[in-house]
Amino acid sequence: MKTITILGSTGSVGRQTLDVVRHSKDQLKVYALAADKNVKLMEEQARAFRPAVAVMMNDGAARELQGRLADTPIKVMQGMDGIINTVIAQEVDTVVTAISGRIGLEPTLSALEAGKAIALANKETLVAGGDLVMAKAKAMNRPIIPVDSEHSAVFQCLEENPETIETIILTASGGPFFSKPKEELENVTLENALRHPNWSMGAKITIDSATMMNKGLEVIEAHHLFTMDYDHIEVLIHPQSIVHSMVQYRDGSVLAQLGKPDMRLPIQYALSYPTRWKNPFERLDLRGKTLTFFEPDVKKFPALALAYEAGRRGGTLPAVMNAANEAAVSAFLERKITYLKIHELVEKVCSEHDVLDHPELGSILDADTWARQRISELI
Amino acid sequence: MKTITILGSTGSVGRQTLDVVRHSKDQLKVYALAADKNVKLMEEQARAFRPAVAVMMNDGAARELQGRLADTPIKVMQGMDGIINTVIAQEVDTVVTAISGRIGLEPTLSALEAGKAIALANKETLVAGGDLVMAKAKAMNRPIIPVDSEHSAVFQCLEENPETIETIILTASGGPFFSKPKEELENVTLENALRHPNWSMGAKITIDSATMMNKGLEVIEAHHLFTMDYDHIEVLIHPQSIVHSMVQYRDGSVLAQLGKPDMRLPIQYALSYPTRWKNPFERLDLRGKTLTFFEPDVKKFPALALAYEAGRRGGTLPAVMNAANEAAVSAFLERKITYLKIHELVEKVCSEHDVLDHPELGSILDADTWARQRISELI
Repeated sequence: MKTITILGSTGSVGRQTLDVVRHSKDQLKVYALAADKNVKLMEEQARAFRPAVAVMMNDGAARELQGRLADTPIKVMQGMDGIINTVIAQEVDTVVTAISGRIGLEPTLSALEAGKAIALANKETLVAGGDLVMAKAKAMNRPIIPVDSEHSAVFQCLEENPETIETIILTASGGPFFSKPKEELENVTLENALRHPNWSMGAKITIDSATMMNKGLEVIEAHHLFTMDYDHIEVLIHPQSIVHSMVQYRDGSVLAQLGKPDMRLPIQYALSYPTRWKNPFERLDLRGKTLTFFEPDVKKFPALALAYEAGRRGGTLPAVMNAANEAAVSAFLERKITYLKIHELVEKVCSEHDVLDHPELGSILDADTWARQRISELI
Repeated sequence: MKTITILGSTGSVGRQTLDVVRHSKDQLKVYALAADKNVKLMEEQARAFRPAVAVMMNDGAARELQGRLADTPIKVMQGMDGIINTVIAQEVDTVVTAISGRIGLEPTLSALEAGKAIALANKETLVAGGDLVMAKAKAMNRPIIPVDSEHSAVFQCLEENPETIETIILTASGGPFFSKPKEELENVTLENALRHPNWSMGAKITIDSATMMNKGLEVIEAHHLFTMDYDHIEVLIHPQSIVHSMVQYRDGSVLAQLGKPDMRLPIQYALSYPTRWKNPFERLDLRGKTLTFFEPDVKKFPALALAYEAGRRGGTLPAVMNAANEAAVSAFLERKITYLKIHELVEKVCSEHDVLDHPELGSILDADTWARQRISELI
């Protein structure tokens, strides 16, 4: 029996994690649920899964939840302190970091420091603070098991000896604009960008998929997770989202992980690892299926090239790029800027940034704050 | 440094094994080469690779080779005794069984008995005597590493805990008659059947691919190699021969091995296992590629259904089916029978056979001899 804390339980990955728990009652127990401000759903989840603790980041939401759960023994906590409490609690084996954005960085570091395993569904954590997080995981000898379908695929294809890996090949659906001519991207709306062809995900990651910044962030995530230099991480467009990623070995052999585009699979694997649990989820049936593969168009999706550049440069630059992107995507979701403006702004903020090498957590957070500030000034 | 004996060095897999040796001179050394009767090529190979021993099955061929190699220190041996000698020799670590047909069974058993690892490229060995061979491998605690591209793929996709496997999915190109209507199979010629779309292989296996008996034999091979019941071994047509096979785990995740259709990859892996050696072979490039998958048509390719039946029945039946098939394919290659007659004869001999359960080697060889005899009577 594994006891888990889920950060971001009301989000897309959080809800699917709870569905995995529902199917693995003999293997998983929830210690704590944490979310930002969706009180109504948090109450439902808390009543259904009976965690010891429920946390709301938002102050008012926490007070409201307290009232709603007054008839239960569930303890309600608030804010980042509450979150840190639930990740370091002695009962907890694994922390699922399913919150979106840089906010995941501190609890991830705290959880590792307390000796917890991480099921990582928050790529921004590694983009912003990959060196710190991986060093902490190594020092504490705790695993970081990826939940992102691409990184889970790579993780499942890994053999014991890392020296035998030649190239990591991350697949990308290409998003909703894969077949749209570059010239037409000027006029795309928020609604167009939110229509992902294969995956049902949160709004932020869906927009990142449309710009392919999501794949750029994943390249940086893969660099940290698998200690692989950027020259040996490739991106391959695969519109059907069935091959979730691949590893090419030095003898030319390629291992790939395939499955239906169902996030519950990589979530369950991150929790069941190193074994696999039986589940009743629909199986992949390849009969009649056609799988295609294409080179990504970095002219149409410059965010991908920018992420490679930021990753190669390192230091505080990936954190700045990520923060600028989070802020720009927020502005796009609020209809304050156009689709093409997202990349324009992120690139500008990156180019203005004085990169600091080997940053500690404080410098990363400062760079992050600066980037968000610059975006709001530039809008 | 691994020292190997190659049985069938002048055949297709044998020649490619030597090409692997050529690219892995620091890792591989040839102790002995054995072949049937191609003296000219054996002389070339012996001069190039300088084995301690060269064996010809054929008596006259052995005498001729002796003369040709008189100026070298290479010892020439003859017949099955010569072969057995080279597989049990103390110097040898691994025996590559690249001969075609049931003839591989005895040397494989002898090699295991002598504590050698087997790189198995002779599926008929497991079809005829799978229970005996696997029991011997287990008793001697020696690995049997598959060289067949499909089984190598499965082997590469295997995780430690065999209980987590749900289904083994063997891919099949479909052979030259995949898109030919069933009615037209009456008129196909030897030349049509020898034209395999993707793989360059020996004549016998190429005909087996055309009838899909090859895939049937591979299903039985997989049953033995991976201790998997027939209900959990599936065949999937994949005309591009890029996905070499797959393993579906009990959580719904599918691992696949991909590569160019180049037998040197699985051969090298069988010899490098558990590590992988770098090589300069051309890499798979999926950009622009389309992969398709279809259910096999067992009406058009009844050999596949027959093999499942024979495998499920077990005892001496798989050996009989295999022997009848070897004899019938020989007759087809000699233009004595038509393409459709191959299956008709094999099915008839199988239906006539009184199956003996739990046969020892002697009974398997008797059943084999009987089946070949019946085929020659029926032609």
